Amino acid sequence: MLFLDMQTEEEFKDFILNGHLHYIPNVSIDCAIFGYHEHQLKLLLIRHRNMSRWSLPGGHIKRTETLVEAAYRNVKIRTGVDNLYLQQFKTFGSPGRIHFDHFDKKKWLEITGLTSWEGNWLMDQTVSVGFYAITDFSNTVLQTDLTTGECAWFDIGSIPDLEFDHNEMVTEALHTMRLHLYHYPIGLNMLPEKFTLSEVHSLYETLLGKKLDVSNFPKKLIALKLLKKLEERRSIGAHRSPHLYSFDKANYEQALKDGLILS
Amino acid sequence: MLFLDMQTEEEFKDFILNGHLHYIPNVSIDCAIFGYHEHQLKLLLIRHRNMSRWSLPGGHIKRTETLVEAAYRNVKIRTGVDNLYLQQFKTFGSPGRIHFDHFDKKKWLEITGLTSWEGNWLMDQTVSVGFYAITDFSNTVLQTDLTTGECAWFDIGSIPDLEFDHNEMVTEALHTMRLHLYHYPIGLNMLPEKFTLSEVHSLYETLLGKKLDVSNFPKKLIALKLLKKLEERRSIGAHRSPHLYSFDKANYEQALKDGLILS
Repeated sequence: MLFLDMQTEEEFKDFILNGHLHYIPNVSIDCAIFGYHEHQLKLLLIRHRNMSRWSLPGGHIKRTETLVEAAYRNVKIRTGVDNLYLQQFKTFGSPGRIHFDHFDKKKWLEITGLTSWEGNWLMDQTVSVGFYAITDFSNTVLQTDLTTGECAWFDIGSIPDLEFDHNEMVTEALHTMRLHLYHYPIGLNMLPEKFTLSEVHSLYETLLGKKLDVSNFPKKLIALKLLKKLEERRSIGAHRSPHLYSFDKANYEQALKDGLILS
Repeated sequence: MLFLDMQTEEEFKDFILNGHLHYIPNVSIDCAIFGYHEHQLKLLLIRHRNMSRWSLPGGHIKRTETLVEAAYRNVKIRTGVDNLYLQQFKTFGSPGRIHFDHFDKKKWLEITGLTSWEGNWLMDQTVSVGFYAITDFSNTVLQTDLTTGECAWFDIGSIPDLEFDHNEMVTEALHTMRLHLYHYPIGLNMLPEKFTLSEVHSLYETLLGKKLDVSNFPKKLIALKLLKKLEERRSIGAHRSPHLYSFDKANYEQALKDGLILS
C-alpha cells in the first residue's frame, strides 16, 4: 500500500497517520505503464525499499481528484510524461489480494511513533483500480522517492514474480490493451507529427507482439479518415520515398470517444 | 448507498451501524442488467423507497467475496437469474458523484436511533465498480425489498434521469457491452440449446441496436469453430428448414477467456 510520492519522513508520517483525511481509504490505483521503442515492448516496475519483490507503480486517490487524474498524476511522477495514452482496464478486489508478508513493518512504525499497525487505515482491505498507459520508453525519466528504491523497464517477456496480484494485473492490462487496439485509435503522441504507413504498421506490431498482414491497420485507419495523406514524401534511399501521413485530429478525438471497428 | 437486500428493520439497523465490519467501506458495485427478448433491448432499474429518481441496482462488497461474486449475488437478488453473461466495464470515482439531495435522511435515522449521519461509514466518498449483465428479460422474476420499492424493465431508448452518475454508467455499460460483442462469444444461456443462424443474427442485432449484414457474425462464429452444425433441421414452413447449430462449449469457454476478433 505504501506507494507514495513522499520526499520527507515528515510527509510520510503525516500520510500514515492522517492520509485517510486526504485520500479515499480502501481504494487504490495501480498502473501498468507499457513502453515501446523500435520493436521492443517493456513494462515499468518499481521496488519499494521495504519489499523484496517488484510491483506495479500505484498509489491512493485524493479526495478531490477523479480516478483518471490520480492515474495521470501517478504516471507523471514515475516517468515524467504527462501526455500519453491512458485507459482504465479492470478493478481488482479479491479478499486477501494484499498481504504484507514481504513487508518490513517495523521500520515504518519507528518513523511514525505508532506502536502497532492495528486499525491503521492503510492496513484495511483495498480494492485497486487498474490503468494501463502507453509511451515511448526512450522519452521517459524514471523517478524514485523516499519509499521507492528502484524503478526500471522490464522486457514484456521477462516479468518477474511480482508483489500481491500484480502478475494477474499485468496479464489483464496486456489483454485489454491489445483488444483496445482494435477499437480506439493510437499513435498520437507515439509517432512523430508526420510519419509513414510503415511506422504505423510497426507500432501496431510492437504493441500486439506479433507480425501482421502488411498495411492492414494503416488501410483501415485511412478508410476511417483517421489518417491524412500529405503531399510531402520521405526520402529513404534510391527509388524509395514513401508518402508521409498525419492524423486528422478531429476524427481521431471522435473515434477515441466513440470507439470503432479496426481489424 | 442504501442498496441492500435487507428484509427486516433489525437487519437494516445493524447494516447501518456495523456494516463496515462485514463490507468493504468506500467501495460499492453497480449493475447495468440488460434484458433482451424478441428484438427488444431493456435495462433494469430500481427505485429506493427514500429516493425520488430511479437508479441502477447495486450494493456493497462483502469482505469475504470477490467483486464478481458481489455482482452475481446482486443480479440474482434482483432478477432471480444466476447463470448469465456478466462483465466488469468501468469503475467510477469522481468526487461528488454521490450526494443525498433526493434522499430522506431523517426517516432512516429514526430506525437506527442515531442522532446524525455524521461520521457514518455509508456517508463517506465511494468508488463504484460497474458490471453489466445480459439476460432474457422474459425469464426474470423481479424482486423488491425493505429499501427498494420498485424494480422494472425500461426500454433502452427511454431511460429517465437517474440518481447520481448512473446515466453515465448506463452509457459506458452499453458502449463496453457493444465493443465486447466483437471480442467475446455470447449466446450460451441466451439462445436455446439448438438454434438457427438467423436466431444468432437476431441476438446480435438486438444487442447492438442496429441492422447487420446478414450472417456476418454467424459466419465468423462458424469460422472460429464456436458453432457446430448439427444434422438436425428445423421445419419452419414449406421449403424452409434451416440447419440447427449448437455451441462448441470447449472452444466457447476458451474464447471467453482469451478474447477473439469478430466482425
